[in-house]
Amino acid sequence: MCKIRIGVIAAICAVLCGAIALSAARPAPQASASLANDPKLVEDLVYANRILFAQSVLDGFGHVSVRSDKDPSHFLMSRSMAPGLVTSKDVMEYDSNGEPVDARGRNSYVERYIHAAIYRVRPDVKAVVHSHSPDIIPYGVTGTKLLPIYHVSAFLRLGVPVFDTHNEFGDTDMLIRDNKLGDGLAKVLGSSGVALIRGHGFVAVAESTPIVVYRAIYTQINARVQADAMKLGTIKVLTPGEAVKAQAIVEATVGRPWELWKSQVGKIE
Amino acid sequence: MCKIRIGVIAAICAVLCGAIALSAARPAPQASASLANDPKLVEDLVYANRILFAQSVLDGFGHVSVRSDKDPSHFLMSRSMAPGLVTSKDVMEYDSNGEPVDARGRNSYVERYIHAAIYRVRPDVKAVVHSHSPDIIPYGVTGTKLLPIYHVSAFLRLGVPVFDTHNEFGDTDMLIRDNKLGDGLAKVLGSSGVALIRGHGFVAVAESTPIVVYRAIYTQINARVQADAMKLGTIKVLTPGEAVKAQAIVEATVGRPWELWKSQVGKIE
Amino acid sequence: MCKIRIGVIAAICAVLCGAIALSAARPAPQASASLANDPKLVEDLVYANRILFAQSVLDGFGHVSVRSDKDPSHFLMSRSMAPGLVTSKDVMEYDSNGEPVDARGRNSYVERYIHAAIYRVRPDVKAVVHSHSPDIIPYGVTGTKLLPIYHVSAFLRLGVPVFDTHNEFGDTDMLIRDNKLGDGLAKVLGSSGVALIRGHGFVAVAESTPIVVYRAIYTQINARVQADAMKLGTIKVLTPGEAVKAQAIVEATVGRPWELWKSQVGKIE
Amino acid sequence: MCKIRIGVIAAICAVLCGAIALSAARPAPQASASLANDPKLVEDLVYANRILFAQSVLDGFGHVSVRSDKDPSHFLMSRSMAPGLVTSKDVMEYDSNGEPVDARGRNSYVERYIHAAIYRVRPDVKAVVHSHSPDIIPYGVTGTKLLPIYHVSAFLRLGVPVFDTHNEFGDTDMLIRDNKLGDGLAKVLGSSGVALIRGHGFVAVAESTPIVVYRAIYTQINARVQADAMKLGTIKVLTPGEAVKAQAIVEATVGRPWELWKSQVGKIE
Repeated sequence: MCKIRIGVIAAICAVLCGAIALSAARPAPQASASLANDPKLVEDLVYANRILFAQSVLDGFGHVSVRSDKDPSHFLMSRSMAPGLVTSKDVMEYDSNGEPVDARGRNSYVERYIHAAIYRVRPDVKAVVHSHSPDIIPYGVTGTKLLPIYHVSAFLRLGVPVFDTHNEFGDTDMLIRDNKLGDGLAKVLGSSGVALIRGHGFVAVAESTPIVVYRAIYTQINARVQADAMKLGTIKVLTPGEAVKAQAIVEATVGRPWELWKSQVGKIE
Repeated sequence: MCKIRIGVIAAICAVLCGAIALSAARPAPQASASLANDPKLVEDLVYANRILFAQSVLDGFGHVSVRSDKDPSHFLMSRSMAPGLVTSKDVMEYDSNGEPVDARGRNSYVERYIHAAIYRVRPDVKAVVHSHSPDIIPYGVTGTKLLPIYHVSAFLRLGVPVFDTHNEFGDTDMLIRDNKLGDGLAKVLGSSGVALIRGHGFVAVAESTPIVVYRAIYTQINARVQADAMKLGTIKVLTPGEAVKAQAIVEATVGRPWELWKSQVGKIE
Repeated sequence: MCKIRIGVIAAICAVLCGAIALSAARPAPQASASLANDPKLVEDLVYANRILFAQSVLDGFGHVSVRSDKDPSHFLMSRSMAPGLVTSKDVMEYDSNGEPVDARGRNSYVERYIHAAIYRVRPDVKAVVHSHSPDIIPYGVTGTKLLPIYHVSAFLRLGVPVFDTHNEFGDTDMLIRDNKLGDGLAKVLGSSGVALIRGHGFVAVAESTPIVVYRAIYTQINARVQADAMKLGTIKVLTPGEAVKAQAIVEATVGRPWELWKSQVGKIE
Repeated sequence: MCKIRIGVIAAICAVLCGAIALSAARPAPQASASLANDPKLVEDLVYANRILFAQSVLDGFGHVSVRSDKDPSHFLMSRSMAPGLVTSKDVMEYDSNGEPVDARGRNSYVERYIHAAIYRVRPDVKAVVHSHSPDIIPYGVTGTKLLPIYHVSAFLRLGVPVFDTHNEFGDTDMLIRDNKLGDGLAKVLGSSGVALIRGHGFVAVAESTPIVVYRAIYTQINARVQADAMKLGTIKVLTPGEAVKAQAIVEATVGRPWELWKSQVGKIE
């Protein structure tokens, strides 16, 4: 149980140390020449990458995207690289099919179709996180439903759906590597805020970058707390009524942890 | 199990790193113009915020207060912000109803009524912590009683009461957002040092700031140790007689860890 | 399980950060005027304090001692303070009854009788650690025997004895606060390297400072691994023959981790 | 569960802090005069040592080797020391029997025969890791098979074999201290990527240094996730078909975490 808060705390340190080391190790940042998007949108996307790495939701793998403000059928995401190293100049634009608008030789994440598929069918969604968080994996492979155990994870509502590629696609390489698989995932996600992928990880979606970061972090915390609580006895989770009300009030205060997380990551590029 | 000490240790690092980053990120501190309280009281309150964040008892949420030395019906607490970022100039004064004496546009924590209600009925209490510690959550939702497993958590005595808002108030947003809910919590707390809130977190109270910090930290550690021990067999907890005696001697030495925790947090503002 | 290595690793960071912060926060060190002991003995004692704090075996509480080279009936130990802050000038000399030879107003740990009692009856012991490690607590309160699960904890041999003060002394404050209690503990320890104290912690003893530090660290790791393994099935622990042989070879290489631990702590005072 | 990501994250911090401390504590590096190998091979070997220490796969014990590019029957490995302190000048050359080519008074790891035996019978193997990871120990002592729970640990395939020295060799000191024991381990390893050693640790092998580092890290993570998932219910692990396909694609992207891990370790010597 204890490990939960450790994650948060240890992460702070890691990011700060990371910030020092990384800034020493890499050349001065350059503006991403091809993007005409709101610089604030790009900045928050970079923060999201760094924060989620710091909070151990992402490691060397995983990715975050935001819907483009310039063309709402498009989205922005880093080139293929570790999220903890992403800078603004690594951000690329993708079209509604998940293809890069102007690749210029840069590699794309194989699983960009996760993002494309969700943006196509969820106009309310402005940001998407994909993570391999080990804390989440057990819920995707055992049939135990992830449920909201306390008010800060109220957005889990009536439980989190699971997408198992094996059901429809048989033996694959487990990656959401095309639009057909992406559509399968988006269908399972439905109108939820979070969906698990069996033997792989999860996606979180939200109407803003701070909220998607918040949901990804507290999905992971809820997973640990629920597993710990199951060992102690039968859990009284939030009632559906409590979940709706608690989600509204807690997500309205997301600016509070967001400012903390940004300050912990330090200056980004 | 191991995770317990890690929390403590990792926290040190986090705070120190945090101290560096935060001091770089924010303007020079200014004295809180409106407070005529003992500067030592305010300083210890700021330390309590930083220490409890460092020890992972608080994250982006949660809060700490101290009873005012100037007007014992009032209390001091930060404006609404992440505890890890609190400085002395963020400290505000609240009256016995939980309303700010001189808000000057600053936001207050929604759950300030937790503090107000407890100060109203517990004259012995000089400091209050409210936390969402994930280590504690399982005990509030499963009916498993939190009990003193070793001498440093002897203050848990005969076990920790649980306040479930659903019993009396039905589907709420889970927050202690008014004096009625605050009174309900204070009633359940009774004369205890700690009370849990189902699906939400816990409160710790004490006769001084160092002791409330100490109790919050070791309540969290006890929660982890007890959960770990339950997996190994039936636990022989402290007898009531042992708990009374151990609490007295251990709390008399709280200055030892308090000096450590302060040194780990470094210079505050 | 994972948490084990984290402890080790996180600790490194903590110590290093700690070293920076603490050296900034405190005045220049002064030689401990009254001690005529080998400076290397005192230096290693200070390292032991810092390393065990860094490795999360000690927190704000706990202590380490070494047998005096000048007068083998005496021992050296810090004045009463958090182990993570100990410097050479905090080291005091104690006689065979656990009383300070020259207190000069400095406070002593209440539980110094743990050390005195063991040095009295175990001439082979040159160093003693007393810890409240939460990882160890479950074994002292449930009757589950701590056993050597892998070669690096082979020194646990046929299992670790448990001293329960309640059996002989009834409701106490749980502290080993006099020579009678100390003798009770030393008797239970017998010729072992480690003994647990119910609802309190453990002691580790050894023929040198590096080895007692090593035993304390790997006792804690073994406790976590054993608890994790118990959840997976019946454990095949080291056979008595394996334990004897493995202990000899592993403890002969203690210099390897000792150099690492020292380098992690950095310069001490 | 949470602890998994913590390991990764906390490690970052540790390494960075470590890098600072260690560079301060030791003299300027010197080229390893006797080695005529590709400097990149030696550099990656040093990175492997530092990264695996940072990721908590290695502590004060354990070692990493690479097959020599100059003489493929030989291999390179550090002299006997803590992996977290290894520099290029500590790297020595060993022959096919595990004996140092030019010891010049430097000590060798007792268990160098692990590496020699595997290089003798596995021409595909270019790098070997030996670790005592506490996360892995439970699988070697309980009979619970380590299986691939998600796509990033697909290389575990149909499960990991266990070498129990007691079966063939009876009561030993548990070390793989000669070629006979090494051959026994290599035989159990067979064509696998990973093998466990009962009451001792594990070995990971691969066709390159980044991949062996990757496998060692995710073997440890898988061990934690699997243990956590077993508490929630029956696990649907990767099918054999999924494992083959997923391993191929994930190991093709190992450069992504490898760059991250290197950046976290900082400048090596």
